[in-house]
Amino acid sequence: MKNYISINDITNLEMAIKEALYMKEYPYAFAKAGKQKTLGLLFFNSSLRTRLSTEKAAKNLGMETMTLNVNSDSWQLEFEDGTVMDGTKAEHIKEAAQVLSQYCDVLAVRAFPGLVDKSQDELEVVLSAFMQYGSVPVVNLESSTAHPLQGFTDAITIYELTESLCAVNKKPNVVLSWAPHPKALPHAVANSFVQTMQKANVNFTITNPEGYDLNPEIRGEVPVIHNQKEAFANADIIYVKNWSSYEDYGKVQSQDSNWMINAEKLKGTNQAKVMHCLPVRRNVVIADDVLDTESSAVIQQAGNRTWAAQWVLKNILDNDK
Amino acid sequence: MKNYISINDITNLEMAIKEALYMKEYPYAFAKAGKQKTLGLLFFNSSLRTRLSTEKAAKNLGMETMTLNVNSDSWQLEFEDGTVMDGTKAEHIKEAAQVLSQYCDVLAVRAFPGLVDKSQDELEVVLSAFMQYGSVPVVNLESSTAHPLQGFTDAITIYELTESLCAVNKKPNVVLSWAPHPKALPHAVANSFVQTMQKANVNFTITNPEGYDLNPEIRGEVPVIHNQKEAFANADIIYVKNWSSYEDYGKVQSQDSNWMINAEKLKGTNQAKVMHCLPVRRNVVIADDVLDTESSAVIQQAGNRTWAAQWVLKNILDNDK
Amino acid sequence: MKNYISINDITNLEMAIKEALYMKEYPYAFAKAGKQKTLGLLFFNSSLRTRLSTEKAAKNLGMETMTLNVNSDSWQLEFEDGTVMDGTKAEHIKEAAQVLSQYCDVLAVRAFPGLVDKSQDELEVVLSAFMQYGSVPVVNLESSTAHPLQGFTDAITIYELTESLCAVNKKPNVVLSWAPHPKALPHAVANSFVQTMQKANVNFTITNPEGYDLNPEIRGEVPVIHNQKEAFANADIIYVKNWSSYEDYGKVQSQDSNWMINAEKLKGTNQAKVMHCLPVRRNVVIADDVLDTESSAVIQQAGNRTWAAQWVLKNILDNDK
Repeated sequence: MKNYISINDITNLEMAIKEALYMKEYPYAFAKAGKQKTLGLLFFNSSLRTRLSTEKAAKNLGMETMTLNVNSDSWQLEFEDGTVMDGTKAEHIKEAAQVLSQYCDVLAVRAFPGLVDKSQDELEVVLSAFMQYGSVPVVNLESSTAHPLQGFTDAITIYELTESLCAVNKKPNVVLSWAPHPKALPHAVANSFVQTMQKANVNFTITNPEGYDLNPEIRGEVPVIHNQKEAFANADIIYVKNWSSYEDYGKVQSQDSNWMINAEKLKGTNQAKVMHCLPVRRNVVIADDVLDTESSAVIQQAGNRTWAAQWVLKNILDNDK
Repeated sequence: MKNYISINDITNLEMAIKEALYMKEYPYAFAKAGKQKTLGLLFFNSSLRTRLSTEKAAKNLGMETMTLNVNSDSWQLEFEDGTVMDGTKAEHIKEAAQVLSQYCDVLAVRAFPGLVDKSQDELEVVLSAFMQYGSVPVVNLESSTAHPLQGFTDAITIYELTESLCAVNKKPNVVLSWAPHPKALPHAVANSFVQTMQKANVNFTITNPEGYDLNPEIRGEVPVIHNQKEAFANADIIYVKNWSSYEDYGKVQSQDSNWMINAEKLKGTNQAKVMHCLPVRRNVVIADDVLDTESSAVIQQAGNRTWAAQWVLKNILDNDK
Repeated sequence: MKNYISINDITNLEMAIKEALYMKEYPYAFAKAGKQKTLGLLFFNSSLRTRLSTEKAAKNLGMETMTLNVNSDSWQLEFEDGTVMDGTKAEHIKEAAQVLSQYCDVLAVRAFPGLVDKSQDELEVVLSAFMQYGSVPVVNLESSTAHPLQGFTDAITIYELTESLCAVNKKPNVVLSWAPHPKALPHAVANSFVQTMQKANVNFTITNPEGYDLNPEIRGEVPVIHNQKEAFANADIIYVKNWSSYEDYGKVQSQDSNWMINAEKLKGTNQAKVMHCLPVRRNVVIADDVLDTESSAVIQQAGNRTWAAQWVLKNILDNDK
């Protein structure tokens, strides 16, 4: 694997899951794979899980890590080509990417979308620029439209949660459900989850209010049901996430609390496990009566972030030899 | 030792001091004790000594460290139970603590008090939440009411400073003195010093203006003298610290510069050594004519922070085996 | 080498360049030189290259690093002697420097000038204070008046770029050119470059508008030509940098875009390579038609930052044995 930009960079998802779970069992099995290699982590936005789990993954492989909060530690970057840089931005990505490629063996980048201009966000300007101008592998720590480390984590977690189902040759029923949130949130996590489930051996459905359908190019043939109750019937996994409208781009059209996930709603399911990428706003997105019970898989899921990242870094290091 | 929350978590203070001083002499004697273990340092407030000495201590033990400025690097955390999280706080401590426990083998946390609501501060909401919801040992890097790494450091330093006194079987006279400060400061350092001295083989007195008596539950039987000059007579150690009023909680009742420590005031003492946890405001809390002379032990004291932290981490690692 | 404050701390520049280039070829040749040694990096100002290349250099030598953004992570420092600290500054450099010297084996410090009071800036208060009060070697990561890690980097880069010239015993023609910039910038980079070139085996000229002559004490005998075109004739190396006025201290007297470096201006040169310390504002300081072509050496130059820092740290560690 050269870069890890999208879940589609994983060619064999099932094998990748099994290898990641091997790392979960033996975290230091490849403790020298990253010897004398440096991972640069560049954050244009806040992070807790991504930051720490990726640093941890790198260290488990023996890599050094250097973490930069780009806007506060360093200079504001210009991404526009040909511009006259007489404003507030002191450095162009062309230089930054080439320079960082000399200090780091792998660059991992987080840059959220503006959620104002859809086509601008879909250009993935920041991530693309690091790939275009940099000379080392790039890992997506959540970009405008994708969060593939989360997607791979989710696949690992669903594999763990549904192994018994698979053992009796029953495909698990997985539902991605929109839930309300006070702020306009990106589509990245939902997109990567949709793309991951399309590669997985599951029955997959999306449920969201009218006006909240995800990008049809990503959604493809996945059925969308606008009635949450109907969608949850017989669900084995309910993956909860808020996103802002894609059609009316970046807008909060609804904060309808009827879409919040609570224990009552799990009754019609197949004792569904509830997943969420975190951070989760309690009693807005998911109720305490789910998060504080056996129904919740969110902690196990967050724990798996380390092994997803470790697998990705290991594969990039192997490829780079 | 499971957690290090209060100086009372050290069962044998004298043995702990001797072991910490052994580490001071041989910093790398246990360079593999923390192999493949990660210390997470979480700062809700600023830090210089605590941050660097604890990182250093961890590295001396071969641990990896991951440091997070919680508010700027990550998400604002909610600590209230059952709340509807529709405000500015994006993540609940219940998730954060459980998730961080999966990435780190020990969590060290700094969270200062609000100094507005006494009973709220005394709940030690942040630290308690990490202990309640997390699943790894917790180290207190200064909480609302205690700074036990400082307390242990102080015990080590007094032991070094008074060894000769002890050799002739004379208990050193230790005085904790309030001193003025322009801002309202927490009681944590003073509290932990009082608790530490109660466990130490010293004669111990507190001196502060009327209205500044510390929490009687912590102070216990320790005599409080409201006349600083009287308290300093024959002192071997003067420990200087400002704190805001405890009775009139969090208020600055006095900035009386007569309480500042200067060379003149040391005349009636037994050539007392002056200690302070730092940072110290010169010529407000302690005068230059003390800090710049042999009377000051503040640098030696700050240096001992490393060995206090190293002893604590070593004991937690040993217990965790 | 005890400290690295100015390029003059390098006694034999040519030997230093060759040793640094050896490290570039064999980055891990001295991977144990810094074992159980800690480099503290203290930033009073933003940094990208300096921060990451110096961290990388330290790690290549097996050193641990601890990085502190002084103003945001820690306390505001007081540098004035004898002051009554009743304002916003919580800690005096006297304590900070002594304390940090106990946690770190080498301290590296970045502190930009205020550009308001020339004589104040020239006192180099921050750096001097760390040298005066600290007890470990100090490395200048860019101070008010000097950026010697950049200067050494530049010497290494010019050596690489002009080896063929030297082979035929022709001294390269090096020109330092002022270029316009929207903000008032420090003189540190220009000063260190001038000092470095005076030690190097080159023909050296400075070109800048009237009113922008650098400090005559640093400039010494170096010819200054106020006509850029004339200065560029037969140049082998053009080193571009903006600085604010030195005479009318800290002021932007000109933003004359005629001084911007572009491809057209390279025509009269000896196929000159263009250098800049970065960050560079494109199409303000240097045009795209230089930066995006073979004429630019800025990326190679930035890459050499690691080897300059590694050589400096290695020499300090060797001296400290």
